[in-house]
Amino acid sequence: MRSEFSLIGRFFSRPTHEAVLGAGDDAALLPVSPGMQLAISTDTLVAGRHFFADADPYGVGWKTMAVNLSDLAAMGAQPRWALLAITLPEADDAWLAPFSKGLYACARAFHTELVGGDTTGGPLTCTITILGEVPPELALRRDQAKPGDDIWVSGWLGEAALALRALQGLVELPDDALTICRAALERPSPRVELGLSLRHVAHAAIDISDGLLADLGHILERSDVGAELHFDSLPAHPALAHFLNQPWARNCLLAGGDDYELCFTAPASRQGEISAIGERLGLKLSRIGSITELPGLRLLDDRGTPMTIERGGYDHFA
Amino acid sequence: MRSEFSLIGRFFSRPTHEAVLGAGDDAALLPVSPGMQLAISTDTLVAGRHFFADADPYGVGWKTMAVNLSDLAAMGAQPRWALLAITLPEADDAWLAPFSKGLYACARAFHTELVGGDTTGGPLTCTITILGEVPPELALRRDQAKPGDDIWVSGWLGEAALALRALQGLVELPDDALTICRAALERPSPRVELGLSLRHVAHAAIDISDGLLADLGHILERSDVGAELHFDSLPAHPALAHFLNQPWARNCLLAGGDDYELCFTAPASRQGEISAIGERLGLKLSRIGSITELPGLRLLDDRGTPMTIERGGYDHFA
Repeated sequence: MRSEFSLIGRFFSRPTHEAVLGAGDDAALLPVSPGMQLAISTDTLVAGRHFFADADPYGVGWKTMAVNLSDLAAMGAQPRWALLAITLPEADDAWLAPFSKGLYACARAFHTELVGGDTTGGPLTCTITILGEVPPELALRRDQAKPGDDIWVSGWLGEAALALRALQGLVELPDDALTICRAALERPSPRVELGLSLRHVAHAAIDISDGLLADLGHILERSDVGAELHFDSLPAHPALAHFLNQPWARNCLLAGGDDYELCFTAPASRQGEISAIGERLGLKLSRIGSITELPGLRLLDDRGTPMTIERGGYDHFA
Repeated sequence: MRSEFSLIGRFFSRPTHEAVLGAGDDAALLPVSPGMQLAISTDTLVAGRHFFADADPYGVGWKTMAVNLSDLAAMGAQPRWALLAITLPEADDAWLAPFSKGLYACARAFHTELVGGDTTGGPLTCTITILGEVPPELALRRDQAKPGDDIWVSGWLGEAALALRALQGLVELPDDALTICRAALERPSPRVELGLSLRHVAHAAIDISDGLLADLGHILERSDVGAELHFDSLPAHPALAHFLNQPWARNCLLAGGDDYELCFTAPASRQGEISAIGERLGLKLSRIGSITELPGLRLLDDRGTPMTIERGGYDHFA
């Protein structure tokens, strides 16, 4: 067994460039840019709940950082710094080395520096606190959706939930489809560039971590509006589209967690700009419905008939 | 069982005054004061390791916040905001209500706002990320101790370790002594005011979470200096002083964790100012030794003879 200090020193103390003082003192010292607001969020991943206890540690490291970056993406914030609080049953180099590699790889890909943290013994849980910057008034909040806004979603929905089902042996997928869906589950790509591009365009945004219906529901609740969604407009990955006549597959699409795409609302007048952003980023952006004054969420089929909504999303205590 | 959102709403969503946007969006938005550096730190408390699983939840809430504030105190930073990531096996109102009360009580006592967090199911662990502000160049770092500096420590040492021993039935204490030592263990008081007062006075500082020798050792290592400590100058609480002829009691004093006092170094020319600070704050400040060019840490008895140092401090994987 090694001590906390030796662990931090060996795996989590790469030099920092954008901090005045990084890991190794009582606190990190960070020079927030003049005129910027600080955007800050924290998310925990628990072994056996958010990832399989025997999952590839590189992927766990990547995903722990990615799901936190996704929160900043949903605010339109530029990621800057991160802190890691990790609790682990033993100081296992064979696990920590690839974990830290995955964590740093994701951080580097999104220009984020690990500047501090805490290592302690206990059941395996990883908590990241992520910090970014956003100019005042430009953050993409949940409470600014307006009636008449289009509702958009990036990428595909339900891939991660489909991969999870396949890994649990509940559905069989062709190898290539499984590879794509597993990548969505294990190496999610936070939509940081999209969030930054939407700063002057979108009214409201959220990242889809608990499923489309649950997360869009937060926008509706906080903005005090309702929504109509067109089922046929939802971006179901081809591997999932194949099964959409079955309730479990519709559930993956509507309520599958772990997508880390952005759901956002914007005035109809901005459709051209939004399409151009999607083209510039090489990212599929789908217009899936609109915000209504009438409260509640209505899901319509291709004939405009309301469909039954089966469940609400991922519940952390379900 | 309740959902994450209901938990956050019921126990951790008191209104914020100093944040642009608090809990309830993807990230909190914080207005860092112009010209200030951000000081940020994170610390995790694990049930069964940092507190007894059946400990009074109010005290667990207080202590989780206090140990984090202590890190800012050691930087000379003014606390501003905190985030809480809590993992708990079930949504137990009877535990969460007093836990959140203790957490908020400590936060309020030190002018800190809870602005966000994450709640998830899993083994009971509480991680706080704490944010404060400090003017550039005035932070109390670990790497600025100079040969000739006096070494100081606030309050008493070893009280928390003595209380833990008493609770484990390894030593018997009179009721009044147990009450005082338990308060040190369960309701530690972060030395925020002291840290702020030392901004223009101290060269280096650290908070004593892992025991005096281990924590002073970090200052020595990072400042590339050594130290001489005078055993008779160490502030052993009277309840502990009584046992100092026994090795376990000397160990409480030198290496007992959980003290959350500050250890700091300052030029000898500042002794008068430091005594005045102690009087103003009603806080015992003891001069316990001095920084030397010669590396290593030497503990001297009342005749100046080196004493044997038995162990190094709390190891999170011991």
